Amino acid sequence: MRIVVLTGGIGGARFLLGVRAYAREVGAEVTAVVNVGDDLLLHGLKVCPDLDSVMYTLGGGADPERGWGRVGETWTVKSELAAYGAEPTWFGLGDKDIATHLVRTTMLNAGYPLSAVTQALATRWEPGLTLLPATDDRLETHVVVDGEQGQRAIHFQEWWVRYRADIPTHRFVFVGAETAKPAPGVLDAIGAADVVLIAPSNPVVSIAPILAVPGLRDAVADGSAPVVGVSPIIGGAPVRGMADRCLAVLGVECSAAGVGGLYAGRSSGGLLDGWLVAPEDEGTLVPEVTVRTAPLRMTDEAATAAMVRAALELV
Amino acid sequence: MRIVVLTGGIGGARFLLGVRAYAREVGAEVTAVVNVGDDLLLHGLKVCPDLDSVMYTLGGGADPERGWGRVGETWTVKSELAAYGAEPTWFGLGDKDIATHLVRTTMLNAGYPLSAVTQALATRWEPGLTLLPATDDRLETHVVVDGEQGQRAIHFQEWWVRYRADIPTHRFVFVGAETAKPAPGVLDAIGAADVVLIAPSNPVVSIAPILAVPGLRDAVADGSAPVVGVSPIIGGAPVRGMADRCLAVLGVECSAAGVGGLYAGRSSGGLLDGWLVAPEDEGTLVPEVTVRTAPLRMTDEAATAAMVRAALELV
Repeated sequence: MRIVVLTGGIGGARFLLGVRAYAREVGAEVTAVVNVGDDLLLHGLKVCPDLDSVMYTLGGGADPERGWGRVGETWTVKSELAAYGAEPTWFGLGDKDIATHLVRTTMLNAGYPLSAVTQALATRWEPGLTLLPATDDRLETHVVVDGEQGQRAIHFQEWWVRYRADIPTHRFVFVGAETAKPAPGVLDAIGAADVVLIAPSNPVVSIAPILAVPGLRDAVADGSAPVVGVSPIIGGAPVRGMADRCLAVLGVECSAAGVGGLYAGRSSGGLLDGWLVAPEDEGTLVPEVTVRTAPLRMTDEAATAAMVRAALELV
Repeated sequence: MRIVVLTGGIGGARFLLGVRAYAREVGAEVTAVVNVGDDLLLHGLKVCPDLDSVMYTLGGGADPERGWGRVGETWTVKSELAAYGAEPTWFGLGDKDIATHLVRTTMLNAGYPLSAVTQALATRWEPGLTLLPATDDRLETHVVVDGEQGQRAIHFQEWWVRYRADIPTHRFVFVGAETAKPAPGVLDAIGAADVVLIAPSNPVVSIAPILAVPGLRDAVADGSAPVVGVSPIIGGAPVRGMADRCLAVLGVECSAAGVGGLYAGRSSGGLLDGWLVAPEDEGTLVPEVTVRTAPLRMTDEAATAAMVRAALELV
């Protein structure tokens, strides 16, 4: 059995722990196709927050309390950069984390594509599944906000981390999406998949940038594998993060039904065959999509694996 | 009064503490022209060991015990890089130090010349004198050594740090020297100087790469300012470092007379008007150069300032 998961960072990483546990149980192979829209250059370093969250979490190196970054992280470089007045100061890189970015940046500058770099980094972390960036090309989520002189576009991370998504916002733009190509292995994995799962990640800024890569959305929508999404919204609130603010920008209701409708059923030009929602959201309807309920709180790996099983039983 | 000092890293930095103390006493201006031959790219970062040793030492941030790098340094990034198997492992970068290299590399990649970057970094450290790299251009000291298949050239740092200068060695090559230009301000400083001091740095791999920049040696040798060198050799042994091994490669005796003869007197096509040697080396002769003795152990700032005074009184 082959499972492909479209995923963002932190929540998606936790979901993948459950997918991996389930896969080990049944002997399935898992490929995670990871969002790169959050990626940015900081102090000359290429930082890939979602890929790293997944890699660290599956490799046992993530900080379980803070929810992001490395366990036992230290911040010496950050405070030294601040002493130099180096901008930006609103995004802090930990010392352990910086080593990852140094290795990645060196390899990228040497000409290796991001997918090859990710594979090289993963040899240390042994995530137990195949990690692929959605694309090797530059694809950055920018956010159009109110500026002093009309609208201006800022990097997603500035909007998210610096402004806590709390400024007047007009829309999201996936810069570079027009010419991006799926990373090597992505289309093959989707084509060979027995099922495609959409992780309970932020639909607007984690899943949408993946689907914005030309050919990738069609491969999922037109492929033979059934597609099951897991709702990132429980009882009208995001499980974590600020999906509510992102959905508001799109005018989409922050609910299991709202996000299900955003992905939409396959026969209505959307993606979904199945949509898994929390018991709190029983009665959710998405036209022409099979909706089931299961507990969606990812409290531990066993609970998450049970949730994955429920998603797979849906199709 | 204007003093220009040609200098390498650690020993030169300690010497500059004395020059600065003396200059504050008499109201002189100091410009340090610093070797860049040791500079290297490590993990994509531009590392300038000599400039940083001078900057950290004069800025009060150097580790006085270890003699190099930052006081209170930590090594998280280094051990993480090792966990990734990232090469090279023979040159360790401290966490605090890495912040300097990140700022420098980012500015260099943005198009700023090294001299401007050095000035920007120095605004934090306030070294109390003008710090100039000998050149903004690439000038790297390589070392021709025996390889398995004939001779091969390795970077100076690899020879020095990895092999402890303890392998069969043929010669030093200053890669890029033919086309390097003195950094902005260097020729002006030398032209306006009342005296040029040659710090007690390694003559072969710290001072020679500075003089290898076309036009720089001539500016010193043909300039109006008298030139006084301070011997890095006391009683036949280097004050610190491995100058003996470097001198052996050139076939020059490791003595105050040997190094004095290497620099040579101005009227013999060399650089020196005066040569300051330790009392242990009384009787040292360098043709057509005024030789005097003074205590040359840089035990503290006052002792070093007295040594600078003795050097200046020589001309």
